[in-house]
Amino acid sequence: MYPSSIQKLIESFRSLPGVGEKTAERYALSVSEMDPVKVEQFAQALTGVKEKLRRCRICGNLSDQDECEICRNPDRSHKQIFVVQSPKDVIAMEKTGEFRGVYHVLNGVISPSKGVMPEDLDIDSLVKRALEAEEVILATSNTMDGETTAMYLDRLLKEQCPDVLVTRIAHGLPAGGLLDYADEMTLAYALSNRRRMQ
Amino acid sequence: MYPSSIQKLIESFRSLPGVGEKTAERYALSVSEMDPVKVEQFAQALTGVKEKLRRCRICGNLSDQDECEICRNPDRSHKQIFVVQSPKDVIAMEKTGEFRGVYHVLNGVISPSKGVMPEDLDIDSLVKRALEAEEVILATSNTMDGETTAMYLDRLLKEQCPDVLVTRIAHGLPAGGLLDYADEMTLAYALSNRRRMQ
Repeated sequence: MYPSSIQKLIESFRSLPGVGEKTAERYALSVSEMDPVKVEQFAQALTGVKEKLRRCRICGNLSDQDECEICRNPDRSHKQIFVVQSPKDVIAMEKTGEFRGVYHVLNGVISPSKGVMPEDLDIDSLVKRALEAEEVILATSNTMDGETTAMYLDRLLKEQCPDVLVTRIAHGLPAGGLLDYADEMTLAYALSNRRRMQ
Repeated sequence: MYPSSIQKLIESFRSLPGVGEKTAERYALSVSEMDPVKVEQFAQALTGVKEKLRRCRICGNLSDQDECEICRNPDRSHKQIFVVQSPKDVIAMEKTGEFRGVYHVLNGVISPSKGVMPEDLDIDSLVKRALEAEEVILATSNTMDGETTAMYLDRLLKEQCPDVLVTRIAHGLPAGGLLDYADEMTLAYALSNRRRMQ
C-alpha cells in the first residue's frame, strides 16, 4: 500500500526490538519529512556502528577501539573486576559514578534451557584477569540463570584463583521502595540478606 | 559513556517521534548486534526514502514516481475525490478496501493558532480537480481545525465548483462501540447525525 521506498524502510524499522507495524510506519513517515542531511547522518550512523564498533579485547565491552575507554583509563583499578552480562549493564553502572574498577562482559548467562553453556561465555579470559585482581564482583541478574552463572563463577574462581575475593552485589528493597509495594521475591531476599545495624 | 559510533546512532534514533533516551539506546544496541547485511539495507532504505520519495503531482500523496499508484490506476474513478490531511490517512482508508475513487492530500489543516492559513495547503489544486469531479468527500479530522477546514472547503467549492457534490464523512459511535463507553462529544455527534431507519 505504501510506495516501495517507504515499505522497505518500514521493514527495517520492524527489525528493532519492540517495534510493530504501526510504530514502524510512524517512524518511516517521519523520516520522509526529515531534513535530508539528518537522514544521511542517520544512515551513516547505522553503517558506522557496524564498521567501527567492536568488543574491547580486555573486557568485552563495546568500543570503537581495540581497548575500551574504561580499560585504557589509568585512573581505573584493574584490581577490581565487575562482572556483567552485557554492555548495557556497564552503562547502567557507569551512570552511578560509584565504581572506579574495571568490567568484564560475559556476553550472556549460563542457560541450559536456551542451550547456553559456560564455554559460550567469555569466562576463560575472566579467570586469567582474576589471577591478577584482588576482587571479582559478580553482578549477573537476579534471575534463575543469573544466579546459576554467579554460583558457577564463584566455584570456578575459588578453585582457579584462590587469592581473589569473590563477592556478589546486594539484592533487596530498591532505594525509596515501600515495603508493601515490593514483590514477594524481593522481600524474601531483603529479609535473608539483612545485616546488623552498625 | 557510549563509544561515539553508538552515541551518534542513539542521537539519530532520538529524532524519531516518541523515542526517548532509553528507547534510542535499546535500538542502537540492537543494531550493534544485527547482521551487517541487514544494517546496510536499513541505511539504504533511509537514504532511498529521501532519494526516491516525492509527492504525487496530482493528489499530493507519497509516491516513488511522479504520479502515485492510485492516480495511475485506470480502475479508480477521478470523479470522486476523498480529501484528507496527510498521506497516513490515505493508507488508513485504503486498508478498508471500500473506496474506488481518488484522493487529495491537503498536507495539513487550517489552524490559525499554529499559523497555518488556507494558502499553506494544497487547496488550489483541489479546486481545479473538483471542476472535473462529481463528488468531493471531506475527510479532515473531527477536531476544531479539521472542522474549520471542512467548512472552509465546503464554502469555497460551492462557490467555485457549483456542480460538484460536497459531502462530509460520517461521525458517530465506532463500530462495535458500546454507548456507555463513548465520550460525550461522540455521543452528541451520534445523536445529532442520527438517520431515519429504512
